[in-house]
Amino acid sequence: MDRALAEAGERRIGWAARAMPVLTALGERFAAERPLEGWRIAACLHVTAETAVLVGALRAGGAEIALAASNPLSTQDDVAQALGEYGIAVHARAGVDRETYYRHIHRALDIAPGLVLDDGCDLVNTLHTERTELLDGVRGGCEETTTGIIRLRQMTAEAALRFPVVAVNDTRTKRMFDNRYGTGQSTVDGIMRATNTLLAGKTVVVAGFGYCGRGVAERARGLGARVVVTEIDPVKALDASLQGYEVRPMAAAAREGDVFVTVTGNRDVIRGEHLAVMKDGAILANAGHFDVEIDVRALDELAQAVHRGVRANTDEYVLADGRRLLLLAEGRLVNLTAAEGHPAAVMDMSFSAQALALAWLVREHALLAPGVYDVPEEVDVEVARLKLAAAGIEVDELTAEQERYLHSWRSGS
Amino acid sequence: MDRALAEAGERRIGWAARAMPVLTALGERFAAERPLEGWRIAACLHVTAETAVLVGALRAGGAEIALAASNPLSTQDDVAQALGEYGIAVHARAGVDRETYYRHIHRALDIAPGLVLDDGCDLVNTLHTERTELLDGVRGGCEETTTGIIRLRQMTAEAALRFPVVAVNDTRTKRMFDNRYGTGQSTVDGIMRATNTLLAGKTVVVAGFGYCGRGVAERARGLGARVVVTEIDPVKALDASLQGYEVRPMAAAAREGDVFVTVTGNRDVIRGEHLAVMKDGAILANAGHFDVEIDVRALDELAQAVHRGVRANTDEYVLADGRRLLLLAEGRLVNLTAAEGHPAAVMDMSFSAQALALAWLVREHALLAPGVYDVPEEVDVEVARLKLAAAGIEVDELTAEQERYLHSWRSGS
Amino acid sequence: MDRALAEAGERRIGWAARAMPVLTALGERFAAERPLEGWRIAACLHVTAETAVLVGALRAGGAEIALAASNPLSTQDDVAQALGEYGIAVHARAGVDRETYYRHIHRALDIAPGLVLDDGCDLVNTLHTERTELLDGVRGGCEETTTGIIRLRQMTAEAALRFPVVAVNDTRTKRMFDNRYGTGQSTVDGIMRATNTLLAGKTVVVAGFGYCGRGVAERARGLGARVVVTEIDPVKALDASLQGYEVRPMAAAAREGDVFVTVTGNRDVIRGEHLAVMKDGAILANAGHFDVEIDVRALDELAQAVHRGVRANTDEYVLADGRRLLLLAEGRLVNLTAAEGHPAAVMDMSFSAQALALAWLVREHALLAPGVYDVPEEVDVEVARLKLAAAGIEVDELTAEQERYLHSWRSGS
Amino acid sequence: MDRALAEAGERRIGWAARAMPVLTALGERFAAERPLEGWRIAACLHVTAETAVLVGALRAGGAEIALAASNPLSTQDDVAQALGEYGIAVHARAGVDRETYYRHIHRALDIAPGLVLDDGCDLVNTLHTERTELLDGVRGGCEETTTGIIRLRQMTAEAALRFPVVAVNDTRTKRMFDNRYGTGQSTVDGIMRATNTLLAGKTVVVAGFGYCGRGVAERARGLGARVVVTEIDPVKALDASLQGYEVRPMAAAAREGDVFVTVTGNRDVIRGEHLAVMKDGAILANAGHFDVEIDVRALDELAQAVHRGVRANTDEYVLADGRRLLLLAEGRLVNLTAAEGHPAAVMDMSFSAQALALAWLVREHALLAPGVYDVPEEVDVEVARLKLAAAGIEVDELTAEQERYLHSWRSGS
Repeated sequence: MDRALAEAGERRIGWAARAMPVLTALGERFAAERPLEGWRIAACLHVTAETAVLVGALRAGGAEIALAASNPLSTQDDVAQALGEYGIAVHARAGVDRETYYRHIHRALDIAPGLVLDDGCDLVNTLHTERTELLDGVRGGCEETTTGIIRLRQMTAEAALRFPVVAVNDTRTKRMFDNRYGTGQSTVDGIMRATNTLLAGKTVVVAGFGYCGRGVAERARGLGARVVVTEIDPVKALDASLQGYEVRPMAAAAREGDVFVTVTGNRDVIRGEHLAVMKDGAILANAGHFDVEIDVRALDELAQAVHRGVRANTDEYVLADGRRLLLLAEGRLVNLTAAEGHPAAVMDMSFSAQALALAWLVREHALLAPGVYDVPEEVDVEVARLKLAAAGIEVDELTAEQERYLHSWRSGS
Repeated sequence: MDRALAEAGERRIGWAARAMPVLTALGERFAAERPLEGWRIAACLHVTAETAVLVGALRAGGAEIALAASNPLSTQDDVAQALGEYGIAVHARAGVDRETYYRHIHRALDIAPGLVLDDGCDLVNTLHTERTELLDGVRGGCEETTTGIIRLRQMTAEAALRFPVVAVNDTRTKRMFDNRYGTGQSTVDGIMRATNTLLAGKTVVVAGFGYCGRGVAERARGLGARVVVTEIDPVKALDASLQGYEVRPMAAAAREGDVFVTVTGNRDVIRGEHLAVMKDGAILANAGHFDVEIDVRALDELAQAVHRGVRANTDEYVLADGRRLLLLAEGRLVNLTAAEGHPAAVMDMSFSAQALALAWLVREHALLAPGVYDVPEEVDVEVARLKLAAAGIEVDELTAEQERYLHSWRSGS
Repeated sequence: MDRALAEAGERRIGWAARAMPVLTALGERFAAERPLEGWRIAACLHVTAETAVLVGALRAGGAEIALAASNPLSTQDDVAQALGEYGIAVHARAGVDRETYYRHIHRALDIAPGLVLDDGCDLVNTLHTERTELLDGVRGGCEETTTGIIRLRQMTAEAALRFPVVAVNDTRTKRMFDNRYGTGQSTVDGIMRATNTLLAGKTVVVAGFGYCGRGVAERARGLGARVVVTEIDPVKALDASLQGYEVRPMAAAAREGDVFVTVTGNRDVIRGEHLAVMKDGAILANAGHFDVEIDVRALDELAQAVHRGVRANTDEYVLADGRRLLLLAEGRLVNLTAAEGHPAAVMDMSFSAQALALAWLVREHALLAPGVYDVPEEVDVEVARLKLAAAGIEVDELTAEQERYLHSWRSGS
Repeated sequence: MDRALAEAGERRIGWAARAMPVLTALGERFAAERPLEGWRIAACLHVTAETAVLVGALRAGGAEIALAASNPLSTQDDVAQALGEYGIAVHARAGVDRETYYRHIHRALDIAPGLVLDDGCDLVNTLHTERTELLDGVRGGCEETTTGIIRLRQMTAEAALRFPVVAVNDTRTKRMFDNRYGTGQSTVDGIMRATNTLLAGKTVVVAGFGYCGRGVAERARGLGARVVVTEIDPVKALDASLQGYEVRPMAAAAREGDVFVTVTGNRDVIRGEHLAVMKDGAILANAGHFDVEIDVRALDELAQAVHRGVRANTDEYVLADGRRLLLLAEGRLVNLTAAEGHPAAVMDMSFSAQALALAWLVREHALLAPGVYDVPEEVDVEVARLKLAAAGIEVDELTAEQERYLHSWRSGS
């Protein structure tokens, strides 16, 4: 039976790999060049087929890896099993409780890592608070999410961070393609799978107009919805408005929305005061990293009855006046829980940057003070170049004269 | 266990009903007015939760109903079970073979119907070729699909059709909302569920630019794809072009597509000559009524190996040169097979028109010669009006002066 | 100086002709076949360069033509002059008053036409009320606009119409391409030229969601505006909603709009009660045929001061509370007045259908009772085919087997 | 007559001012606070109505100003006249030659500025090469364009730049709103005014996918065009592809385009080899700062005849094989030449940032080494906040708990 599970995982990984040509190519290069030879890596990532392809590439590069899950709901047990048989130390299981979640992170850290990979900063946080004995051995790390970066910058400001971390979230590649296109599609995908709702003609309220929120708004509009955006940042709000979206405060949007998607990186974006005025049948989904954006406790308090699982990943909350609100995925990441997370093609880019950034840290760590670092521009460009090649898309080359022109400030109008 | 199945079906029907306010309202009206009192109806429809809501409304109106499936792959067995316990004669089971499919149609016809409901013309065809003894008793019918209407018009031209049929497909409501928005969303939904492919940046070839094709093209573009349209009708081709789509013959498009969707109502739209030049990894999906649009036999002949179920609803065909083509849902309706068909909100409109059209046939059949009839305009307007009311959308009313203006040809410039 | 004017007109006609390959090709065919030999045609059309290309084709076909303007504001005097030198009897001059406008129509009718071309029904109306002595000689006509068709159908209902009229407005070609794409672009073009307003981020209220309104809504959205639609027809309102537009009554939309575009075919769509609640700086534009859609009289009454021409084609009305409303083109067709009307490429299709319809009337008139006729399908298809050819776009051809399949109702699922 | 010209300019400035509420508000604040008291400013800007509003605000703030044109084609002589009567030293006239253009810049520099405003770096360049005697007096400046910034960064790298310059181009506000929305709309506006071409169904090739190129691509698509993008940067090319655009090298795109728009900041983007394969009737437009993006010399050499002004701002080049290429605005900025440049609403944001940046330089210059500086974040946010307020758009405020959450890295998952 474990074998059957592992085989299911292998098939899933194989499926993901065919949509990840860049990472596959890097894996081949790593196998030849062994840039991670002798390094131990502790990783806290969504344990999915795409992650398995990344882990495979790092192992091909010479690394020893211990893996914990960055979210208890996203673990694909068959993939975990397949990775285990492949010789990776995997500490993850779908649906574990909070205590087990953190125990798994500790087990991954037991490898005494030289490098860390994080997705939300829980592993790095644990390292700095409960496993400080390991800090001296860590030479650097990568962090995948905006949320994690916010926490890391705060740690840097407080002089608490002890090693350099590359903000993989902050590459142009990751921001544009992963956050925007990946979260965009997988979020509407999750909502459709969970509810089979026709989005055309619906009013979709998107809370937050960062890269992720922009992606969700574009996809919702692309499926025929009227989109209302809420924001706190005037510049982003103005951008949303100039893109033709309505911009309103949540207090006003709450009355109009058929579907709500939070994607802000903040907590309590949808609160009791908003829930109290929503329409019967309103759908609540979160696409932000943590499950704090919708105030589920307030929802529980308002509800007179809760029907769990009226459809898969959908709970119905019946309010005192008979209105029914539908909470998807318990307020956790709807794209990971109700759909399959980012399509592999997107993770291909993000994880390729991750792999190249680790190789860069191995080369450069001695020169780097603790702090948050941008991904080097050439990593980004290389990832994009490999991706275009895989898609058969050609771009123009500068002529010698154009190169000259761009570098000379002396030419006039 | 049958009870458990029926309960699952009831939950599913309950879920659908909440997205079908118009049909629900009509069901209540029918229960009061009993417009179908004493009528027997033989129906050949997709046996889904939404159909169950329609059947419920008709039964509330006084009808006795026998139901067969219009597609062996679309039957939801739990819904069939629930309908059976509810007292409807259901002749349908998921995954039956061709012979059983037609036997089920015969069983539904055994009711000796006064009215028929069809979805693809198989029931009406069987009636006119193998059950002619029942023809005298039939007063009229409704047909749901474009494909069925084409066949009925041909029958009319050959003087073969023996009773009036309302072309429910041809209402503005059905054409615009169901074909366009329903097929559009559910088709991309089916492709995403089957493959988890990122559509942004992909080239999606849509064969056919009727209402369904237009819907698929809009949704694919709305998800970030570059869309190429193939057509045979110059007017539709020009319209596609003016909407910014590339229009090309399939022979050219075949070389460029990452995803192909056929939605033409014709056969062999993707043939061996096209398959032979496609890119590695190309995805083939059909959203047309019958499973003849992709020439699966040609695909079988070209393939050196076939891996069934590399993902659910996805078969991989490996060609001699190593290229892999992915066929979704065996070339059957991808939106019904890999997703859940039209969202209930769309079927709400289409089935409400169906219910009102049957009531109209009961009133008017004596005056109607055999042939294909448009849905009366007032049915359409009533459906739309009820739908807007359910969504809380208000429209303007003509002032008395505006009424006058519209009706007077004497006013000048 | 007349020569200079005529030369300017010739240049303008030459420019239009290069964007009208279909009509140019038809002109060549007509010159060879002379299908209008011996026919006199009275035409009431916008006297523009594109019309001149049509008139040229008809004359090449053998017709004698007298031309009046269908709108005193749209006449291009240089084109009129060029046509005159070319031997056409032109009765049109920019900016004439109402009396002269109708006198010009009478002068055109003096030709004692066998065929008429109308654009808004004023010529046909005049013929039936004041020039009834000519009615016996008229064999048929074409009408270009929706508004005109409404009036003609009313005349038919009252048995007042005396000859067959082809509703050129009602071809798929005209409706889709001219109304939707032509009016759409030229209306936003007119608004931009008149005001240089940034449409991104603006709220544009489109009154009427017929083909023209749809085109305006698409273009406004395509330029980044948030679009609100008002309608009276529930089916169109629902369609607008499913396309992601907000649908509201004008009373509500009036408070939110930055730009208003009326395109309904009705009068007083924007009335005093709406003007009274608009925002400071609101822009009012009409894209419907007649200048009655915005109640300019009400605006005059509300205003304490009117500043004509604050920009070309823009008048500012200052209300008692200081709010300023901007009326474009005096409430007349903004796309003709402030821009240049439909791009020639669109008129190419519409006028080619017109030319082919006249040739069809010459062949078929003896068989036709008075009434409104659709353009024969083959005319439409031929126009589209020629247009695609000119754009270098190829479409697919049916295989013999596909032809058979489409025509056989006996094949099953 | 000068008075009449000045009055026309005043009307034009008044029209612009009503679309510039932010700058107007700043002007009022400046009049009260006099932050530029005693400063002399040399400015090289497009001499348009919007610039006049900026100049008015600066003067209200206490500055003495000398103004030269940053482009000889964009000068609005009536505005120049009105500014002159208003007491500003204006050295600009429409259509001057290159020599006069630079003489005007020298005259503006004669004011011996403490601050400079530049738009393309010609004034700063002149200052560093021919007017070095003035350099000691200059405390800082602002540069408006991407092109200018590239030149300034090169000067910095070569240690040639002598004072701090704020890169106004690089604010989020400017990049997003001005480059993207302003250039986007005004470029398609310019093309429509120059040619009256229907963009729906046309293939528009956009060379360069920076902020400006993105804006042009969005607007062209929004008007119904099929858009093909050319790029040299793999990351931007991938982004374009993921937004659904075709990406091709210019050599391939040249064969397909109906309309070409260059917006790269580089030279010879469309070269002889591309012109040689274009379709008959292809339209060539430049929206990049300098008139070097289309190789007009190559076009001249290929042409057998040139017809200037076949329409306003349109020259026709007839090639040896009879194909005709249409060059708009002589290859200069099509949005400034054939349309009216950025709508005032966009310049409102950009010029407000400019005004606030100058006030910031006055306060901070003593602390700033020579080099290129980003606009301080708070300037950007303030501009956006004022703009939203003017549009009546409200955004959300963080709750105290949300503030805390965002600033604490200790909270876990």
